[in-house]
Parts: sequence; C-alpha cells; structure tokens
Amino acid sequence: MDIQAIKQLLADKFDLHMQNQNHYVEAFTHSSYKNENRRKHLVDNERIEFLGDAVLDLQVSRYLYLHYTDMPEGDMSRLRALIVREESLAKRCKECGFDQFLRLGHGEESSGGRTRESLLCDLFESVLGAIYLDLGIDAVEHFLEITIYPKIKSGYFNRQVDAKTALQEELQKNGNIQLDYQLIGEEGPAHDKRFKVAVELDGDIIGEGKGRSKKAAEQAAAQSALDAQRANQADDKH
Amino acid sequence: MDIQAIKQLLADKFDLHMQNQNHYVEAFTHSSYKNENRRKHLVDNERIEFLGDAVLDLQVSRYLYLHYTDMPEGDMSRLRALIVREESLAKRCKECGFDQFLRLGHGEESSGGRTRESLLCDLFESVLGAIYLDLGIDAVEHFLEITIYPKIKSGYFNRQVDAKTALQEELQKNGNIQLDYQLIGEEGPAHDKRFKVAVELDGDIIGEGKGRSKKAAEQAAAQSALDAQRANQADDKH
Repeated sequence: MDIQAIKQLLADKFDLHMQNQNHYVEAFTHSSYKNENRRKHLVDNERIEFLGDAVLDLQVSRYLYLHYTDMPEGDMSRLRALIVREESLAKRCKECGFDQFLRLGHGEESSGGRTRESLLCDLFESVLGAIYLDLGIDAVEHFLEITIYPKIKSGYFNRQVDAKTALQEELQKNGNIQLDYQLIGEEGPAHDKRFKVAVELDGDIIGEGKGRSKKAAEQAAAQSALDAQRANQADDKH
Repeated sequence: MDIQAIKQLLADKFDLHMQNQNHYVEAFTHSSYKNENRRKHLVDNERIEFLGDAVLDLQVSRYLYLHYTDMPEGDMSRLRALIVREESLAKRCKECGFDQFLRLGHGEESSGGRTRESLLCDLFESVLGAIYLDLGIDAVEHFLEITIYPKIKSGYFNRQVDAKTALQEELQKNGNIQLDYQLIGEEGPAHDKRFKVAVELDGDIIGEGKGRSKKAAEQAAAQSALDAQRANQADDKH
C-alpha cells in the first residue's frame, strides 16, 4: 500500500494531516486482500467502516438539523438516506480518488471489484472512520464541508426525493387523503411516446405532468402539485 | 414544564450543567402536547430525537470499536442493536427519571402513553440530542459512561444475543452449513415440563440444552455448542 501517496492526497486535497497511519492501512485493506494473505495477520476495513458509517450518519444528521430548521423529521430522514446511500457514497469515493489505493484480492480485482458501488461506498465510510480516529470529529466535519455539504446546499439530493411520496405526506398533515393518478393523454410514436398524467385530490386536479413512462409522468405530476402547494404556503406566510 | 427540576436532575445525577434550556424544552415536548396546543407554536421532540439517535449510534459504535478490538463487524452490529433497541432505551429513560417531566397531550396521557416503550425510548434519545447540542459530544460521552457503558461492560447485553443466530454465523465462516435441532427428551408434569434439545451439525451432536419451552431448549443447546466452539478456538490459539 502506498501510504505516502494517501498521506499526500489527504494533505493536498483536504488539508488533512495524517498522524497515525495504522488507521488508514486498516481503511484501505479490503477483506479479499486479507483473505488472500492470511499469514500476514492483516486487519480489513469492515470494523472501521462500521464506525465511519455512524460518524457520517451523525454529522449529516447534525447538518440537516442545524440548517433545515423547519424540516420535519420524516423529511430529514429521507434526505439523509439519499445522501448516504450506496450509489451516492460510491461517487464521492471516486471523486476523492480513494479507489486507486485500496488493497484488493486478485479474485476481487479481476472480477471488477474496484469499480463496484458497494465496495466503494464501504471504502468511503472506512476512510471517514480513519479520519475520525486519527484526527477527530472536527477533521471529519472539515472533510464533509468539502465533499458532501456543498452538494446538500445545492439541492443535489432534494431533486432525487420521490415526489409522489413527498406529496402524499405533505397533504396528509391535515388528515387522511386519497390521491389518484389518471392517465389523461399519450402522444408520439410507439418508440418515442410521451405520457400525460394528472393527479387528483378529492376529484380536483392539483397537478399535471409529462414523461417517457407513466411512472415518470406521475412523478412529474406530483412534483407540479408539490410546487403549487409550496407556493401557496409561501403566500400564506407573507 | 418544570425546567428547573430537569436542570437539577441533570446536575445532581449526571453532573451536567444546563446552559441553553431551549434544547431541553424541545426534548421534553411530545408531539401530542404540541398538537393540543397549536396556538403556542411549540416545537416537539421528533427532530431532536432524530439527532439524538445518531449521536447514540456513533458513541456506542465508538465504544465497541475501541473496547472489543477483536469483535467482528457483524457481532458489533448485533450488539449495538441490542444496546439501542427500544426496550433497552425505555428502561434507561425510566432509570434516569426523565419520564416524569415529559409534556404529554391529555389523550396520550389517559391512554397510558407515559409508560409506553416507544415514547420513552424517543424521549431518551431526545435528551441525548439536547445534551449534545447544549454541552457537546464530551458531555454525551460522560452521560453514557454513567447510563450505558457500565451495562455493556458487565455483559448485560451480550447475554441477550440470540445464540442460534450466533452459532449459525460462527460455523458459517467456513462455508455453508446445516444445523438441525432435535427434541431428544421431555420430563416433568404438563404444567412444569422441561424439554431437552440437541443441535446437530452434519449428523454430529455439537451441543445439548434444556428449557421450559422447545425454543428455550434450542437456545440453550446452541449456547452450549457455542461455548464448546469458543473453548476449542481458545485452545487453538495457545
């Protein structure tokens, strides 16, 4: 493992100055490498990933609590799930350039493990665990201020929320409601169809949307209803 | 809400000195109370509980990582789940005496909400969230050193692990295996029966146990097999 290169990367990219390299050796060792080198008595990154996962959950929860002071618990929970989901963390891992330094077993390497999302996600959390143990929670916070928080701020994750679920929950605040999604039109040739869907609340159309599938059109309809709903709420406040 | 009494309790019992009472007002307000007092524009404890839950998860993870340096990730994960599960945290909440100070709605109060486990568990996590926001992570750690860690140290939670699951996972490390639990005896009168169960691996009996139910006897058999297994491993190391 090129621990000097990892040290350099953390210093250059994140202004983090490694103290105890053992934590990073642990974080950058995949179980497949350990299993192929049993005599070396190595420690793989499963335990430190368990810790890093919890560190990330807390820091993201704290960020949402402090920055979205009006957001209900359910929405914070959904937003956090989007931020820390496998696909998202695998992307962050590659953006950071951690993947190139992971010690992988031959079998795992030849089957494409180095680009597998679950493995990259685990590696990202493992490195977080190492930073936490080596440099403390403030260093983790500093690292997340570069890698994760700007994306939250930009609304990158909000756009991925399921609009139908969000609409249902938004309207349900005032008691149980029934939403109906109606297909109200189709256009275009078979290979390039557009569907048009309306969402109804108690028989009243509260949103319409188009999409390449019925599912996408329903999401678009729900989003338009949500936007209208939120615009109304903003008006009410003024 | 008797915030002075809460302040006193935290100081007397945990040597924690409240700075900003707003966090505790939030933590000790149940949604049912908020809903019955809409004009007061109160904040309930759902958001701060979300935060407290993550704080607890991290600190317990950290404790397990640092104190059980040989424990595999799967076992840490199971042990943590036992420590932070609803029933466990509800007990801790009552031990701390937090339940008496919660602001509850009339409906919730009259239906026995103040003794409901889910509500007490949420309250415990909410108070953790308040301590974290008000006094920082070191104060949380100090609080857990009094309320939770001694119980982990004493093995209080380990004894609650499902022995059948633990045995299955222990043996599966070396490939897929099939365990069979056989009832091999019953004794005593109908109202005071004892069951005897053997657990077999590939036809060999690897453990036996007795219990007042078949389920309990299976657990006892699995535990005896686990104990034998671990004794063997200990021998191998010497």
